[in-house]
Formats: sequence, structure tokens, C-alpha cells
Amino acid sequence: MAVTDHVHGTTQSPAAANDGVSKDIPCDDVINLDNGDPTMYESFWKKMGDKCTVVIKGYESLSYFSNPKNPCWFLEPKLEESIKILHGAVGNAVTDGYTIVVGTGSSHLLNAMPYALASNPQPNHQINVVSAPPYYSAYPEITDMVKSRLYKWAGNAHEFDKDEPYIELVTSPNNPNGAIQRSMVNRDGGILVYDLAYYWPQYTPITSSLEFDIMLFTASKCTGHAGSRIGWALVKDKEVAKKMIKFMEVTTIGVSKESQLRVAKILQVVADGCKHFRSPKGDNFFETGQSMMKKRWNILRETVEKHQMFSIQNYPLQHCNYTGDVTQAHPAFAWMKCKEGIEDCEKLFRDHKILARSGKKFGSDPGFVRVSMVGREEEFNLFIDRLSKIQSFNNGDGNLD
Amino acid sequence: MAVTDHVHGTTQSPAAANDGVSKDIPCDDVINLDNGDPTMYESFWKKMGDKCTVVIKGYESLSYFSNPKNPCWFLEPKLEESIKILHGAVGNAVTDGYTIVVGTGSSHLLNAMPYALASNPQPNHQINVVSAPPYYSAYPEITDMVKSRLYKWAGNAHEFDKDEPYIELVTSPNNPNGAIQRSMVNRDGGILVYDLAYYWPQYTPITSSLEFDIMLFTASKCTGHAGSRIGWALVKDKEVAKKMIKFMEVTTIGVSKESQLRVAKILQVVADGCKHFRSPKGDNFFETGQSMMKKRWNILRETVEKHQMFSIQNYPLQHCNYTGDVTQAHPAFAWMKCKEGIEDCEKLFRDHKILARSGKKFGSDPGFVRVSMVGREEEFNLFIDRLSKIQSFNNGDGNLD
Repeated sequence: MAVTDHVHGTTQSPAAANDGVSKDIPCDDVINLDNGDPTMYESFWKKMGDKCTVVIKGYESLSYFSNPKNPCWFLEPKLEESIKILHGAVGNAVTDGYTIVVGTGSSHLLNAMPYALASNPQPNHQINVVSAPPYYSAYPEITDMVKSRLYKWAGNAHEFDKDEPYIELVTSPNNPNGAIQRSMVNRDGGILVYDLAYYWPQYTPITSSLEFDIMLFTASKCTGHAGSRIGWALVKDKEVAKKMIKFMEVTTIGVSKESQLRVAKILQVVADGCKHFRSPKGDNFFETGQSMMKKRWNILRETVEKHQMFSIQNYPLQHCNYTGDVTQAHPAFAWMKCKEGIEDCEKLFRDHKILARSGKKFGSDPGFVRVSMVGREEEFNLFIDRLSKIQSFNNGDGNLD
Repeated sequence: MAVTDHVHGTTQSPAAANDGVSKDIPCDDVINLDNGDPTMYESFWKKMGDKCTVVIKGYESLSYFSNPKNPCWFLEPKLEESIKILHGAVGNAVTDGYTIVVGTGSSHLLNAMPYALASNPQPNHQINVVSAPPYYSAYPEITDMVKSRLYKWAGNAHEFDKDEPYIELVTSPNNPNGAIQRSMVNRDGGILVYDLAYYWPQYTPITSSLEFDIMLFTASKCTGHAGSRIGWALVKDKEVAKKMIKFMEVTTIGVSKESQLRVAKILQVVADGCKHFRSPKGDNFFETGQSMMKKRWNILRETVEKHQMFSIQNYPLQHCNYTGDVTQAHPAFAWMKCKEGIEDCEKLFRDHKILARSGKKFGSDPGFVRVSMVGREEEFNLFIDRLSKIQSFNNGDGNLD
């Protein structure tokens, strides 16, 4: 899965989107599960009351600079500290010996990667960017949008057999299908970028503290604060980090201080709360998140198992070092396959007022569709209702497409 | 002058930068006037007390979306409203009939411009990006960083005579030299982008409410909130706006909500306060800003006039529609020329522990240097002290280089 879940490319009915105000969805409105807007977490943060409230005075944070002593001079020291504490508390990634680079969402960092990793090329010697399908739908567009002569999208990592340098984007757990991923090209001359947006306990068992050369994370999927646009990279090679920082300077001269300070506070609260399990205060964010995800996945599995119209992934039971339990994954997206004979699963969903993302956009098959599992409760319930209706209708009729 | 003043490319001593904590500068430390960090305004915002304080609760602004009914779905409605009210109150730009696109600083919007304005090109038919020197030092780097096949930096607008499409970046008032600018190419086939970062009353007389096709502004230079990274574009052509929005989506999936909400509040307070002149409350931001700039420019002029070592620009007296007064410009930068015989003005300043930006970086002469006029009081005072010393030393010795 990917750093963040793009909202672009979506034909969206205004009524379908969350406007942050009207949360009761009229039952004939389109529901938008195309993007992974993580509004599910609002209920947790409401319960936390004022613990995460930030107050910023008019005269604060005027300067461009956050910490001139850091090569990443626009990284707020408090955010750096919270990131390290949180990874330490969860045990999902090593931070010692890494440079932290902050971006306006991890999309910004993904945009920076090919620039930072391409060495001065000759004409017609662009570095290849590949990923194994189904891959995060934004990768091709991020790579090719401005048609750089430094890098190009080279598609399917399974099929990449050129004797040329390459960057492989490895999303793990994968967006769209939640699978744990490793490099598929697996030969010299490649640089691996690990997009670990969903490597948090609510989505997947934490099986080791990762220490890849380049690892990307985002607040959007970790805590649900997508509107803050805060992503971070853990980068081993100082020269690569410097080029990423340069990219951030030229594109946006740094990253919002307000967002950084707010996310710093939120990560700190998550790190403090996540040390206690089954606390009556209910302040373990990951425990609450995992329980919400598990409940939704159970409902979805029950719904699709009634009929044989859709199939969804199964995930292995694994020991999670963080919770200490043996559990399976509960990904932020359901990667659903329609039964034989239904060629366009996205259209089928759309006809039933569910916006979801076609498998085609992930370099895969239109018989698949990706559905967000992290929207608001009302949306999820409506989704389950409509899914049931599609199945019942299909059982009585058989002609859906 | 430019949208924002880049900090990158600067070899910076840690002690030289503002760390936001230690504001008393040891008198032998380097002072950094290379970038235009607008910390001068902190004193005004401190006086405003809690008027501009923002409070954001943990559960607010989780969603990617700010306003799904707006093509720029990530623009906070309150920011949109404040931008319109402020331009209306100051009378510096028309907003009716324009689409507002928000960016992570106006650098982000500048990055978006060539992508949004390049139509599908053939190989070797990149659109040319030009500007008249001295031009904002970041333009060449923004245009050429990832070596796009859609556009290229084509340099000096005065010398551009190809019969090819072009984008002309017109910064007015100009960064570095504060001059009011118009198109220099002045023939068909060009698209003009007006970078109006400094078209506010504290810097220059407001002589008309501009209505160019594309106009860029930034909170950094308007109110001093550079750390918030909020810029906005007023765009007449809806299709161009859509392509800019697309660029924002692919590069960063929108813009920090925290920053937008904070800047919305600040612009609203500025707009409310700027209706009253010479109020004993001192809450007219532009009046206070203009008075601070005027004072600094008077001190600088007095200092350089004592000797004949440096020359600085003169600006015409003009009627300002906003204040109703006849006044001259007091730009955010001083564009200083060393006397004949001093070839590297930046080096001269550096040797005297003043970091400033060489004229070379603006497509101009190393005999010029650009110096920020919007830093903290202590920095400005040290700058004047050291400038006096350079001049005295030069008068006694003559061998400076």
C-alpha cells in the first residue's frame, strides 16, 4: 500500500465527499470510498478531549527556519523527537543512524525520491522507476507528471529485465491489497524505497523493526490526520537525504510549521498511550484502531461470504511484536474481486452509488476494485447495506453489467 | 521581487540563522541577510495579543477535503473568504471572476505554473520560461530542477527573440530591486505570470487594483508568516486553474489545513485593522509595517550617503490609493551596488560577517548584492554597524578585496 491515498483522478459528486460538517449521509447519496480519507479516527480523537489541542499565537513560527543546526532546517525539533519516540514505542522502524526528512505528506517525499536518487544522467538515460502490481495508483503519475529527463515510470517490477539502474517502490503492507511485500526485481543496480504508510499495528502485525535504507511514513494513515499533510522519510545515506531536502526547498521552501507542531503533539500522545494495553481509559490509539478495523473486516467478511459474488484477501496469522498477540492483518483497503463474468467491478459499484477505485489504476485487472475501510461509520454501514443489495439483486437477476 | 525568498543555496553558519529562541546575536556572529526571513513582523504580532491565536482540537481537520464543492477541493473556505476580503480592503488585486488556488507557499504555485501552462508538447518543443534580470534567484532552479521535457529556463526576457511560445515571470515590485515591472518580451505567444508577493502597502504604493490573468501572492511577505507556507494564486482561466490544482494533488495532495486556518484568521485580523489609519490602538498592520520599513530605509540611506562606497536604488514618489498619501517604495530588500573596483560585493560583505546574496544569482552583476530589510531589529542594527565599519575601513585603507 502507499504512503497516502490520492484523492485526485476521482470523478466526485459533491454530495459524496466528506465536507466535515454534514456527516449524516442521505441514504440515496453516492458514498465515496475511492480515496482512503481516514475519518474513521475522528471518534477516537474526540474522546481524547483537550489532550491534543494545539494553541498557536499570532507571533509564533514566523520564520522559515525550524532548526538551522539540522541539515533538514525546516524540520521542527519536536516533530523529530516525537517520530523517534513513536517508532521506538511501536518497534516498527529503527531511527538511530537515520536522517529524518519531513514533507508535505509522504506524496511530497515520493515526488522527491526519483530526483534524489537519479545521478546526473546522459540524455536518454533516465533512471527507471518500477513497482510490482497491484501498485499504488499514484506512482506512475507522480513519476511522469512533468516528463523529467532524469527518471521515468517503467511499470511492472516483475517484468523489469533491463540492465539499467532502477528505483523499486515497495509498498508494505501493500496498497491496494494489504500484502507484506519485498523487492521483486532483486538484482544489483537497484535502489529500494519502502513506502511503509500502513506499517502500524491497527492494520498489520508488527513482525520486526525495519531498517531499510529509505523508509517513508505519513501521519495521514498512522493517526488519521490527513489534512495536516505531514509525511516523513527515514534515510540512511546522508547525501540522498540532502538531495531530498534540496527538493523540498525548491518546491515548497519547507513544510508547514503549524502542521508539524500539531502532529508532533499527536504522535507524542499516541506514543504515551500506546504503552498500556486494555486500559479502561481507552487511550491506546493502536488498540482502539485495531479493534475498529477488526470489527469492520469481520462485517465485510460475513457479508461477502453469504454469496459467492465477491472474494476478498485472506491474511496469515502472525505474531505481532507490539501487541504480543497472534493476529491477522486488517488493511485500510479491501481489495475485492468480482466473480467471473463481471468485467468492470468499479462500474458495478458505481451503479450502486459506491465510488471505489478500479483495479486498472493499480496496474491490475478491472475485475478488482479497491474500497476504503477507514471512512466514517455511517459510510461504512451504507457500503455494507449496498453491497448486500448488489449481491441479493445479482442472485435474483444475474445480469448486472 | 519574488513570491518568496528562497533560503536554499545558502552556505549558512548555524549561528547565523534565526533559531527562534536566542534572539540576542553575539556581536561577532555572522548575520544572515541572504534570505528574506520576515521576522521583523514578530513585534507587531506580539502586540496583537490573543486576537490571532488559533486553537485546533485533536479531532478537527482529519479529512483530506476542505471543500469538495470547490474545484480546489483542498482550499479552506475561511481562507478563500479572508483572501477576498483582504484584497478588497487593500485594493491591490481584483478577485471577482478569479479562481483561487492555494499552495504550500507561492513557491509551490511557481513550480506548478510551467506544468499548468505547457500544452502537450512535441519532443524538443519545451515552452520557454523567461524573466528580466535582475530576476528572483529561484526561478532558474524551479524551472530546471527535474529537467522537464515540457518546459525549460530560457533566461533573460530582454534577449528572448525566438518565435516560440513562452512564459514570462514578471515580479512586481521586483525581487531583488523593488522596481515596478511590466512584460519585457511584449509580443504575442506569451503567457504572463505576475508574482506579486511584495505588492502590499508596507513595501510600495498601491497604484491600482490589478487584474492580470495569473497573479501570485504569499502570506510570507504579506504578514510575515513564512513558516506557515501559504501562497495563493488568482487565476482567470478555469482550465489553467484546474491544471494547477492537479499539480498540487500529485505533488502534495493539497495544503496543510492548520496553516490555512491560521492564515485565514491572520488575514481577517489584518483586513479588519487596516481600515483605520493612525488609530491609537496601532492595529493597522500595513501602517505599522510601512513605518518600520521607512525607518530602516532612512537609516540605510543615511549610512550609505556618508561615503560614496555603495549606492542604493531611488524610488519615485507615487500616490498610494490605499493610504491616500504620496510616498515612495520601501522594499523588503536593498539592492546595493559597490563602487567601481569592488568586483565581488557578496564576498566583501561575507568578510565582514554579513551574509547577503550576490547579484550573480539574479542574472546580474557580482558588483551588486541583495540584503534583506525584514529581519529582526538586532540583525538590522548589526548590519548598519558593520556597513559603517566597511565604509570607514575602506576610506582609511582602500584595499578591501
